[in-house]
Amino acid sequence: MAERLVVIGGDAGGMAAATNARRGRPDLEIIALEMGRHTSYSACGIPYLVSGAVDTLDELVVRTPQEFRDQHRIDVRTRHLVTGIDLDARRVQVRALEQNRTLHIGFDLLHIATGAAPVRPNLPGIDADWIHGVQNLEDAARLLAAVQGRRIRNVVVVGAGYIGLEMAEAFIDRGAGVTLVDRATQPLRNIDPDLANNVTQVLSGYGVKVHLGVTVHGFGDHVVETSDGTYPADLVVLGTGVRPASDLARDAGLALGARDAIKVNTRQQTSAAGIYSAGDCADTFHLVSRERVHIALGTVANKTGRVAGVNLAGGYATFSGVLGTALTRICEYEIGRTGLSQAEADAAGVEYAVGTAEATSRAGYFPGARPVTARVLAERGSGRLLGGQIVGADRVGKRIDTLAAALAGGLTALDLVELDLGYSPAVSPLWDPLQLAAQDAVAALGRMSR
Amino acid sequence: MAERLVVIGGDAGGMAAATNARRGRPDLEIIALEMGRHTSYSACGIPYLVSGAVDTLDELVVRTPQEFRDQHRIDVRTRHLVTGIDLDARRVQVRALEQNRTLHIGFDLLHIATGAAPVRPNLPGIDADWIHGVQNLEDAARLLAAVQGRRIRNVVVVGAGYIGLEMAEAFIDRGAGVTLVDRATQPLRNIDPDLANNVTQVLSGYGVKVHLGVTVHGFGDHVVETSDGTYPADLVVLGTGVRPASDLARDAGLALGARDAIKVNTRQQTSAAGIYSAGDCADTFHLVSRERVHIALGTVANKTGRVAGVNLAGGYATFSGVLGTALTRICEYEIGRTGLSQAEADAAGVEYAVGTAEATSRAGYFPGARPVTARVLAERGSGRLLGGQIVGADRVGKRIDTLAAALAGGLTALDLVELDLGYSPAVSPLWDPLQLAAQDAVAALGRMSR
Repeated sequence: MAERLVVIGGDAGGMAAATNARRGRPDLEIIALEMGRHTSYSACGIPYLVSGAVDTLDELVVRTPQEFRDQHRIDVRTRHLVTGIDLDARRVQVRALEQNRTLHIGFDLLHIATGAAPVRPNLPGIDADWIHGVQNLEDAARLLAAVQGRRIRNVVVVGAGYIGLEMAEAFIDRGAGVTLVDRATQPLRNIDPDLANNVTQVLSGYGVKVHLGVTVHGFGDHVVETSDGTYPADLVVLGTGVRPASDLARDAGLALGARDAIKVNTRQQTSAAGIYSAGDCADTFHLVSRERVHIALGTVANKTGRVAGVNLAGGYATFSGVLGTALTRICEYEIGRTGLSQAEADAAGVEYAVGTAEATSRAGYFPGARPVTARVLAERGSGRLLGGQIVGADRVGKRIDTLAAALAGGLTALDLVELDLGYSPAVSPLWDPLQLAAQDAVAALGRMSR
Repeated sequence: MAERLVVIGGDAGGMAAATNARRGRPDLEIIALEMGRHTSYSACGIPYLVSGAVDTLDELVVRTPQEFRDQHRIDVRTRHLVTGIDLDARRVQVRALEQNRTLHIGFDLLHIATGAAPVRPNLPGIDADWIHGVQNLEDAARLLAAVQGRRIRNVVVVGAGYIGLEMAEAFIDRGAGVTLVDRATQPLRNIDPDLANNVTQVLSGYGVKVHLGVTVHGFGDHVVETSDGTYPADLVVLGTGVRPASDLARDAGLALGARDAIKVNTRQQTSAAGIYSAGDCADTFHLVSRERVHIALGTVANKTGRVAGVNLAGGYATFSGVLGTALTRICEYEIGRTGLSQAEADAAGVEYAVGTAEATSRAGYFPGARPVTARVLAERGSGRLLGGQIVGADRVGKRIDTLAAALAGGLTALDLVELDLGYSPAVSPLWDPLQLAAQDAVAALGRMSR
């Protein structure tokens, strides 16, 4: 009888593993259990579905269950919720939601990709049907149903993280009045406060009413009660973060790691033999802070899923870790960050110099050049780059990747100054903004005692 | 008496050295001798002046002679042509072009930044006044005078390198009919032929008549005689490349290096004590091929000029080398390249796998996503990245910098696949095109014997 791999979770961390396991082991029986209706979708695309930039929910589906069945011989079962893992008996307990019955499926190999679950603060009224999460395509379908054919006048977005900001923009694009609240005093907590302040100004300029340092107390009759007063709301979006969906693994006795995510090694193996995990439910290693972290991002899920799949098939692959790179676009402004922010470096006990540059996206004299702010952190003594940020219009966000690659290569701020980057007046300034920030950091390092 | 630094050449390689020398040595007397009328200008901006995208020639001047005098106490003398260097007597012979007299200036330290000179093929009729180079602001002024207030119907651009392509586009933008000829069978010789073919198609689509594999025989009465027949021309632009302007240094007895550029070490020191050189006239080191090369680019001139200036002032700085990064934009298509092309890798005797990806600039479902072709070369055995290229619209050109930083860090193709790059559907696809190309290269490496 063929060996059987059971995969829990049909999004990136699960299906990247399943397809890579298939590639390495044509003989393997592969069953993928997904509690929702969809596989391999772009949850990151939901704001653009709500804004109308993307036409249909189907466009966000990268591959359907049927495609996995037909092209990869993976037995995908949607609306199948795994409710228990028995490590000794090597089987999972599954609730078939459509059939409303419980079954057990044995496995030789198990891959856990249960993803992340939205944090829903325990607040009065939070379960009302006009309060929406933005986690999966079921949420997206509910949101679309709520906005289509109906005029939404007032939207309150709770949480000024990436998804919160993108949803705020989306509802402005739909013509709604949008109030954004967060108990923090800045949006996007993983960028430095001064650059976050630029983002606040962009949002305000676009018409979003931004209320920071405000605590939500609860939800009344189409109002949001806060420490700053009561805001009317036809619809609330919760962008209050996620936590790793690791309860199932914990209950099965698997070790948990950073932020209670499933603890894995570089081959994505959990603490139990033959059990792997990848994606938003697993922890990972931060290449700059050298600490275990939890990062819930599709890019990481795809990469760790691939590594798990290669290993599940008896091959050899490792995932060395993340840099904490993140990217978004708010009203034509792109915001990229990688490595450590100042707050993260402080928390890690690292000492550093800060370099900042106010520059332009193209040669200053070239039509279409727009302001760019670039930031680089470099370690005291070694001069090693620790992280940085870039904020500006004119498509500059992806330039953060230059810094990500520099971090991966262990380059110093001076190396970055010297780096042979591309220049053409129509495309970029002669000195790249990140290089100007690195020059500033080199100067600051020079003023520090070693 | 104060020590005196004489700088020959008032563009980037000269003035970056002069200003950095000033910073390190407030006591130094600094005299900069420039044969033209301008200092520190963006020659790369000339095509955009001709196209009309940039309004005035003055916008291309980064800093004027007077600004250098006032802000840096540098005695800039324009229209001063250095005609000889006497290393024993430690003095230069100078022709003051306005005064039409010869003088001698002694130096303690000398910095040679004579730049590059355009290659003018020895062809009949090439000195006619309707045949234009695109090397400096004097050329720009002549070009502007030729096109302003006059309808240019037919332009022939000789040479399909970066400047040739940019000038071809500029004259299309002015409403001229443009014929582009090159004896090579592809434009942009430092990118791979298949990607260069994409560029040819873009040019043709924009209305440029591209004639490749065609040799120019000479210039008649407003016609260009070629191996492919006679083309009418109101104006000819020569984009036939440059050579290091190293005659002065050679005649003084300084050693020459790659392509007869002035040989320098990592501190930009020439073969003679106290004599430095930087910019387009000096050779440099290629970090991937490990060979001495000549690269005439403003970015490199600024960096090597800075290093020379620090060292001239008694400080310590080194320039480790270049990656051969280049970037341009042709009709909204941006073309980036770094490291070795296939032809360069072949010439260097390196064996490699090629990875290519046809991808999109943003998530495929996102409005505004455009096709992108990415190419990565990785070394057989080691998997080390050797170079790559990216071509596409939607501002993707600067993404070549990710690969440049990866080359500087010595990353492998697999490292690039794993690299934590930024993703947001509005900005980029989940898998960066360069990562997809790297995946393809990894697969190709796997098919090679080690």
